Amino acid sequence: MAQNIYDRAGFYEGYSRLPRSLFGLDGAAEWPAIRGLLPALQGKRVADLGCGFGWFCRWAAGQGAQKVTGYDLSRNMLDRARRDTVDTSVSYEMADLDTLVLPEASFDFAYSSLTFHYVQDFRRLMQVVHNALVPGARFVFTIEHPIYMAPAHPGWMTDAQGQRTWPVDGYSVEGERRTDWLAKGVLKYHRTMGTTLNTLIDTGFHIDRVVEWRPTEEQIRQKPELDEEKERPMILIVAVHR
Amino acid sequence: MAQNIYDRAGFYEGYSRLPRSLFGLDGAAEWPAIRGLLPALQGKRVADLGCGFGWFCRWAAGQGAQKVTGYDLSRNMLDRARRDTVDTSVSYEMADLDTLVLPEASFDFAYSSLTFHYVQDFRRLMQVVHNALVPGARFVFTIEHPIYMAPAHPGWMTDAQGQRTWPVDGYSVEGERRTDWLAKGVLKYHRTMGTTLNTLIDTGFHIDRVVEWRPTEEQIRQKPELDEEKERPMILIVAVHR
Repeated sequence: MAQNIYDRAGFYEGYSRLPRSLFGLDGAAEWPAIRGLLPALQGKRVADLGCGFGWFCRWAAGQGAQKVTGYDLSRNMLDRARRDTVDTSVSYEMADLDTLVLPEASFDFAYSSLTFHYVQDFRRLMQVVHNALVPGARFVFTIEHPIYMAPAHPGWMTDAQGQRTWPVDGYSVEGERRTDWLAKGVLKYHRTMGTTLNTLIDTGFHIDRVVEWRPTEEQIRQKPELDEEKERPMILIVAVHR
Repeated sequence: MAQNIYDRAGFYEGYSRLPRSLFGLDGAAEWPAIRGLLPALQGKRVADLGCGFGWFCRWAAGQGAQKVTGYDLSRNMLDRARRDTVDTSVSYEMADLDTLVLPEASFDFAYSSLTFHYVQDFRRLMQVVHNALVPGARFVFTIEHPIYMAPAHPGWMTDAQGQRTWPVDGYSVEGERRTDWLAKGVLKYHRTMGTTLNTLIDTGFHIDRVVEWRPTEEQIRQKPELDEEKERPMILIVAVHR
């Protein structure tokens, strides 16, 4: 079972104050890049795995999706998602993605944002998603980039030339990583890029796009602190189809 | 045009003394991983882009390939490749991969080892390879991993915890990298993993396998200095089909 960090008091309050929690999709700098990879959602049955406060679910409904189901482990987040949602085409279900079961061929599109690094059994989940999608359906997800995830002690460092660098170690050693982010000992699972992509291929997906997100120059002009994201990717965006 | 470093006196002599130059495919620790991705070559027409001393070309001929053509920029390397080759199914051509032209649908398999990071126009070359392959043909190549390529000053560092790390910077800033390896100012072209894979997809290839090579535990037992390769990948192996 996945660690349910989002329902720990300190974590939940901290997470709730992040721009992406306060301002939704537009509070996430990677959203324009994700949006460019999404298919038209009009009339589609959509699953959002790790839906959090439901921002994407409501957006998808606004795009004309026929039915949107958001899955999340956190009762706190689902409570707020339900409070914030009026569209009756959107529903939410509490679920642990490590044990999730979905009905076969019941979705036309699947989505997930920054959730899969909390999932221990990625292969199992990909099989569940594959079975739940109709043939030809697309699936877009984001995950912490393995360069960002790999180090035992992730963080910036300045090298002998005064260059800001992101030291990488343990890249090929997959498995648990414990970091302090809004709370102590947040448990994540590091997988290499190769493992992520090969698992998708093994499951029967076809790779359409692999985006190691970086801010645009325009985004950096508006928010100079994003400049450091060019040094190492923090977010990986993957688009596939069944 | 690509920099022809291999014909510089100092570089050529240094390169000739590497295990992979002295012992061929078995002198390259990544060869078992590559070999596992190769199709049966019996009866196939094979292209090797950046064939060097022709080790792979001769091996392919030994596997029953009908016709093997090795392409390389270096006269020194091709001279030795020709001297070392007796099999008449193998031939060599001098070619700059940045301007290479290949006949349409004339190959059943394409291969390249640690060459494409010297190529400036990767997109153009991928189109040339795609056109040169018959539908369904497979294409396997290795390239320096972008984690290895990206830094302005690549090298190991020890962090505050005494951990050996590989500092990454400039990952999302693609283009020229000049490093000192056997000679001063060797020119390579850094591309992100995303760019490499998306260029292949745009060209019409289907991604079959993405391997961020690491030594096996057995290889580390036999050669303990390989252990550091687990900290960050040096070589990327990609298998696709047309």
